[in-house]
Amino acid sequence: MALGTLDEYQWGFNGMFAKENGGGFLTEHFPEARKSIWDFYGVYTRSRHVPGVNFAGIMHPGLIGCLPSQELLDEWNKRELGLIATDPDRVPPLACPPDASTAHLGTLKGEAATKAAAEAARTVPPREHGGNCDIKDLTKGSKVYFPVYVKGGGLSMGDLHFSQGDGEITFCGAIEMAGWIHIKVSLIKDGVSKYAVKNPIFKPSPIQPEYKQHLIFEGISVDESGEQHYLDAHVSYRQACLNAIEYMKKFGYSGAQAYAILGTAPVQGHISGIVDIPNVCATLFLPTEIFEFDINPCAEGPTPYINGDDIPISEWDK
Amino acid sequence: MALGTLDEYQWGFNGMFAKENGGGFLTEHFPEARKSIWDFYGVYTRSRHVPGVNFAGIMHPGLIGCLPSQELLDEWNKRELGLIATDPDRVPPLACPPDASTAHLGTLKGEAATKAAAEAARTVPPREHGGNCDIKDLTKGSKVYFPVYVKGGGLSMGDLHFSQGDGEITFCGAIEMAGWIHIKVSLIKDGVSKYAVKNPIFKPSPIQPEYKQHLIFEGISVDESGEQHYLDAHVSYRQACLNAIEYMKKFGYSGAQAYAILGTAPVQGHISGIVDIPNVCATLFLPTEIFEFDINPCAEGPTPYINGDDIPISEWDK
Amino acid sequence: MALGTLDEYQWGFNGMFAKENGGGFLTEHFPEARKSIWDFYGVYTRSRHVPGVNFAGIMHPGLIGCLPSQELLDEWNKRELGLIATDPDRVPPLACPPDASTAHLGTLKGEAATKAAAEAARTVPPREHGGNCDIKDLTKGSKVYFPVYVKGGGLSMGDLHFSQGDGEITFCGAIEMAGWIHIKVSLIKDGVSKYAVKNPIFKPSPIQPEYKQHLIFEGISVDESGEQHYLDAHVSYRQACLNAIEYMKKFGYSGAQAYAILGTAPVQGHISGIVDIPNVCATLFLPTEIFEFDINPCAEGPTPYINGDDIPISEWDK
Amino acid sequence: MALGTLDEYQWGFNGMFAKENGGGFLTEHFPEARKSIWDFYGVYTRSRHVPGVNFAGIMHPGLIGCLPSQELLDEWNKRELGLIATDPDRVPPLACPPDASTAHLGTLKGEAATKAAAEAARTVPPREHGGNCDIKDLTKGSKVYFPVYVKGGGLSMGDLHFSQGDGEITFCGAIEMAGWIHIKVSLIKDGVSKYAVKNPIFKPSPIQPEYKQHLIFEGISVDESGEQHYLDAHVSYRQACLNAIEYMKKFGYSGAQAYAILGTAPVQGHISGIVDIPNVCATLFLPTEIFEFDINPCAEGPTPYINGDDIPISEWDK
Repeated sequence: MALGTLDEYQWGFNGMFAKENGGGFLTEHFPEARKSIWDFYGVYTRSRHVPGVNFAGIMHPGLIGCLPSQELLDEWNKRELGLIATDPDRVPPLACPPDASTAHLGTLKGEAATKAAAEAARTVPPREHGGNCDIKDLTKGSKVYFPVYVKGGGLSMGDLHFSQGDGEITFCGAIEMAGWIHIKVSLIKDGVSKYAVKNPIFKPSPIQPEYKQHLIFEGISVDESGEQHYLDAHVSYRQACLNAIEYMKKFGYSGAQAYAILGTAPVQGHISGIVDIPNVCATLFLPTEIFEFDINPCAEGPTPYINGDDIPISEWDK
Repeated sequence: MALGTLDEYQWGFNGMFAKENGGGFLTEHFPEARKSIWDFYGVYTRSRHVPGVNFAGIMHPGLIGCLPSQELLDEWNKRELGLIATDPDRVPPLACPPDASTAHLGTLKGEAATKAAAEAARTVPPREHGGNCDIKDLTKGSKVYFPVYVKGGGLSMGDLHFSQGDGEITFCGAIEMAGWIHIKVSLIKDGVSKYAVKNPIFKPSPIQPEYKQHLIFEGISVDESGEQHYLDAHVSYRQACLNAIEYMKKFGYSGAQAYAILGTAPVQGHISGIVDIPNVCATLFLPTEIFEFDINPCAEGPTPYINGDDIPISEWDK
Repeated sequence: MALGTLDEYQWGFNGMFAKENGGGFLTEHFPEARKSIWDFYGVYTRSRHVPGVNFAGIMHPGLIGCLPSQELLDEWNKRELGLIATDPDRVPPLACPPDASTAHLGTLKGEAATKAAAEAARTVPPREHGGNCDIKDLTKGSKVYFPVYVKGGGLSMGDLHFSQGDGEITFCGAIEMAGWIHIKVSLIKDGVSKYAVKNPIFKPSPIQPEYKQHLIFEGISVDESGEQHYLDAHVSYRQACLNAIEYMKKFGYSGAQAYAILGTAPVQGHISGIVDIPNVCATLFLPTEIFEFDINPCAEGPTPYINGDDIPISEWDK
Repeated sequence: MALGTLDEYQWGFNGMFAKENGGGFLTEHFPEARKSIWDFYGVYTRSRHVPGVNFAGIMHPGLIGCLPSQELLDEWNKRELGLIATDPDRVPPLACPPDASTAHLGTLKGEAATKAAAEAARTVPPREHGGNCDIKDLTKGSKVYFPVYVKGGGLSMGDLHFSQGDGEITFCGAIEMAGWIHIKVSLIKDGVSKYAVKNPIFKPSPIQPEYKQHLIFEGISVDESGEQHYLDAHVSYRQACLNAIEYMKKFGYSGAQAYAILGTAPVQGHISGIVDIPNVCATLFLPTEIFEFDINPCAEGPTPYINGDDIPISEWDK
């Protein structure tokens, strides 16, 4: 796989969704919609809205996969509608059911189009076929083994990102870009059964940014209110992210700027310990080479480096 | 920090706990107690019970941290007892409350000892102070910034591991070893407030095994029974682990052997996407260089390489 | 700096020059002209003439630098003509003097053109300004600090390579490609004196192929005839290269194919020890991940994998 | 292979030899004897004589190899004495012939001892069997394939280094340490012919310091006096080293301190281009993470950070 930016669009954006619009991973803390613009300089990116960082992107498609079979589609709809039914009025919803009013059906017409629109899976989540997996490591030079469900495969892809942190936590969370992608396809006959493939398997590229110096933040399964959860990796990773944000604020960043950094820069989110009841230990690896100043701790304490405007709050079209 | 093995103990072990004894991350699939022995050869380890793998260890302490204050201890007990109270008869329990009958109290005597035994935190989970965080990357050459709560700090450590995968999924899950550890301590006055430290922060070592070739397995928030969960990273990582195990079985490993590899080898567990409702995309990075045979997919399909005895089931002392 | 291939030219070539035409590093062993074609597949390349290898390229300009001042140019001509004068009839020559008959002079006309043609430096060697330095690590994302000698700088570049091994030993030795390059320029006023810059200094990119597994071959300052040289790194590196070629031949490669691999693949050439009289220890790092088969030693001995046609000998236009 | 420091000797030293005593790579520039002491802190080292640097060592044996056969020994003596004969009175000598007065002969007695002392190879240079190859990458976890010449092999080793830069340029040039080494030996029958082994081949360890940020200095085959040499890698690497020293001096280091850094820290010395007559392009990779201050160029110019005492000049026992 190879991919790149379009020559005439040497920029991208990172979006935080408003809480009423679905929000992001830390939406309770950042309920407003915000958008930061990231300019591209060859392999690097910088943002007028998030000063002090400059990093090499790991470009990748957020979304890629083969068409599901009718059977698999039915299973998706059944299980997701089942989940929605447990709390149907929730905002945001527990899952995104088919929505005929927004479906794009390509060349389908008439009854076939009507049927498809009524049951077509939305592209929001990752599923068995891949889909919106948002794996930041799936960059040029990678090789992916997708399960094939229908004759012809129906491989499609999109949602190109210039860079993303593990978790894509700001939701529209990577640096979204206009780009091209080039792939070579071959087939392993009966590969799904040969290799017990349920979800895609992939081999990453030998060409990736090598940021080796990190500050690593831990989080455990105790939430912001002090409540203890049972082996909850989601709560733990949220705490690790919040801990990193509080740390970065000591250097002058606003919370939203720090949040944007975690969404866009090549941070790693690891599940470090997941068996020691009741706390999962999640770790967030923040590469320190991406900062234009020294963000390491020292005995004297932090010197605020950033002292600018925050990322502006956006209106959004309800 | 530096650490190493004791000269006279050039071996360690990895344990899976029986389900009735607390189990591990995949205890529904591997309910029996099992133990594998791992011999050390300089920086490498191999196991008579898990043939075909040979890897360099990232030695680290599973457990390290400063003493909590009385206040913090009270908070731990309050929140964990609160969790237990939601389902007090659960097996395994939701958390491990203080247990006077097994408490080791050092030089404390009399009333002080009785009081301490009644409220002393068990060392099972990671907490704000660090504790049993089981972070595989905390190896020699690392630097950790711990919060200090009491005069003197009370830094202690133990549970040395020769190697561990992200998650320590088999529970007694790393390769437990007999070893030594050497640390240098300095103090950042008022560091907790200077850097907004809630949980420990650390800088990893420049000296770590560099396995660069991986097969990456995905998992989503749909459990083994097909039930859909809502943004559940725990379920997703379990699926990624199970997918990797099924893959390894195609090369001749038993399920328990594959499980032991995920517990002991330097696998990485990433939270790749955590905002695309309803599925978290968790990814398990399995280094392929650790295998003595080629474990990559090819058009011809897998050739079983391993064809030996399984890890024996252990009796355990109830 | 960013660079890439032209869409319509997804291939490049590696050339060995005939001995009478200047030859290459191992011209005594490979006196014939040969050319191998390398097709590009995204970030990877493979050659119909050199089967069994497949690697990611580190694209870079072989030649880049600012214009010399008249003074510096005079110094170049003086010292190179001085060297030639010590053995004026040598084939190949000791250096390449200005050659008016082949000079391309852009928009210069008349007397200015005649003068320039008579004294213009040939672009064969690297010099203080950079020039044909052929540094394989100078890839996209790199930053170079060039000395500036004349008003305006006169930065120019060319000779784009898809990939090259340290030394560019086959002479036209990288994989030569048709491509584009994009650079951003800024100025450090008085930088040459501020940083004592005599030759260019550069910072490599965080994005580079990460081949971590190598076989490393040594060479010492004893030449092919057994003659002892005094701390001669040139002889030592040649021996390391020859040792690697003999090794690869055991797997079925022809000598010329193995030579082409050393010229094109991201091999590293290190000066490991240069003070232990009379032998320099040079080391050649051959990445083993680039081979489609296992090229490591084992007790059973090598299994020839390659069994094809050699790189054809080329006619060349004398 | 595994190796380490002796517990009671947590320090080592780096020596520059006086010019009359053999000197080092830059002896014309640093003719005095000097010694710097390096203290070990776990995996790291710092020196009271060379402030501002702190790096993780890559411990390795400078010297390792099997015994030569009588035939090979004869060849060594013949070719090295031949070289000496071309300039027998040179200081330093062109090579180090057998020297009965300083020979240590272990358990040999009588006539056998006399004969051996007269012809035994000195351990100064690397030779076909390995010997004093001073390869910094030969660290714990490495595997070496040595040629075996006599029954039993006669493998021996020593000269343990805590860290060294490519070239070991200060001569006694690594950080010499007191340590232990542990190796596992197996035999490939007829391996020399199976794999065309002339000099040792080795596989480096997956555990090595990963310094990824470098400043890279170039050098060409024009010496300090401006004289042009023909494809002389020795001259080029010397220029690259001198360029790096001049650069470091801008930050306050003395020349001898900068020289000591190049001798001890994990710098890389590459032969980047070796075919572009008349200049070899050698490159010196200086890792910037080892400095406690920012040593990168910036528009404002360098701020001297080091302002201390130089490495003292040593008396030496003539």
